[in-house]
Amino acid sequence: MTPNTARRSEASRRAVLTAALDLVQEADYAKLSIEGIAARAGVGKQTIYRWWPSKGAVLFDAFLMLSEGAGGEAPVLPDTGDLEADLILVLRATVEELNDPRFGPPMRALSIEIAHDPELAAAYVERLDGPLREAKRQRLRRAQQVGQLAEGLDLDVAVDMIWGPVLNRWLQRTGPLTTAYTDLVVTTALTGLRPRGSSS
Amino acid sequence: MTPNTARRSEASRRAVLTAALDLVQEADYAKLSIEGIAARAGVGKQTIYRWWPSKGAVLFDAFLMLSEGAGGEAPVLPDTGDLEADLILVLRATVEELNDPRFGPPMRALSIEIAHDPELAAAYVERLDGPLREAKRQRLRRAQQVGQLAEGLDLDVAVDMIWGPVLNRWLQRTGPLTTAYTDLVVTTALTGLRPRGSSS
Repeated sequence: MTPNTARRSEASRRAVLTAALDLVQEADYAKLSIEGIAARAGVGKQTIYRWWPSKGAVLFDAFLMLSEGAGGEAPVLPDTGDLEADLILVLRATVEELNDPRFGPPMRALSIEIAHDPELAAAYVERLDGPLREAKRQRLRRAQQVGQLAEGLDLDVAVDMIWGPVLNRWLQRTGPLTTAYTDLVVTTALTGLRPRGSSS
Repeated sequence: MTPNTARRSEASRRAVLTAALDLVQEADYAKLSIEGIAARAGVGKQTIYRWWPSKGAVLFDAFLMLSEGAGGEAPVLPDTGDLEADLILVLRATVEELNDPRFGPPMRALSIEIAHDPELAAAYVERLDGPLREAKRQRLRRAQQVGQLAEGLDLDVAVDMIWGPVLNRWLQRTGPLTTAYTDLVVTTALTGLRPRGSSS
């Protein structure tokens, strides 16, 4: 490959990924097709099939491009020492993104492809969700080290307890994603459903 | 409508719903079409379009048919007085269903349609998820009345805290659905992430 063809390939690749993101924001993802992405990107259908096996794979790479655009650094959760306040802040930011018309629809489209496709789900866990989950675990681990979280706590279950209810409510549309709801999820997860003794 | 045409209509309706469930169990739902359901049911495509606007709507009615088949009575959660044991039992049964090849794939297909389609989601919340959620709330309310759950607890958040992590892990394939995992979700939700004082 000459430097020029490499440059042209990279330009086509970025055009395809950008077209996929644009179309998902504008239209119903269920109706989106490889043909539609190709037309919008100004490339042939074969160009897409040469690089990607499915529209889910295109969308996944578009998300990778977005996160590279964000600096490519490993994510870190805020740590002011006040765990509850930090978690409330992060969960509010998550909900803001999910409710944002630029980010919510592509995220929903990717989540639907993941629900369909175990291979895509594995790639997502490894490359996108994995680093973010590690950042969440690290924040909780630091809290655990200073005695703010229970000693024997399973940090993966703890992450699921904070983010799982919100993500499931969003994806399955069982209720509105308000900050009142997410704040209550954080405090309820920290406190637990059982009554606390008078000592706490 | 004469009694005979009514009977024939009902037979066609049931054939369509049964065909949809059979096909979802056998094949990738993403590839399933109204044409495929019509062929399997032995009816014309127009018969399906006369009654249902989309394949998601067919699947939804198929689920209603299944739950009517189960007796049509309002669901009730077990109440032995031991809340933790009862919740562990129910969540294990949920996971068994989700891992069951007869039930898991159609449930996943319906969940994906719900993620796509806000109208279908509203119908699901009203007719299928609603009665089940009320049964969960009732079990928690009884526990709250006898002091086993915190007084000010929001019962909807409590339901999401127990079922949300499991449903999200299942739908987004972020980890295996084992009983070890679901048991830990129940105990962690009840206890909370923060350390309990020595009084508890």
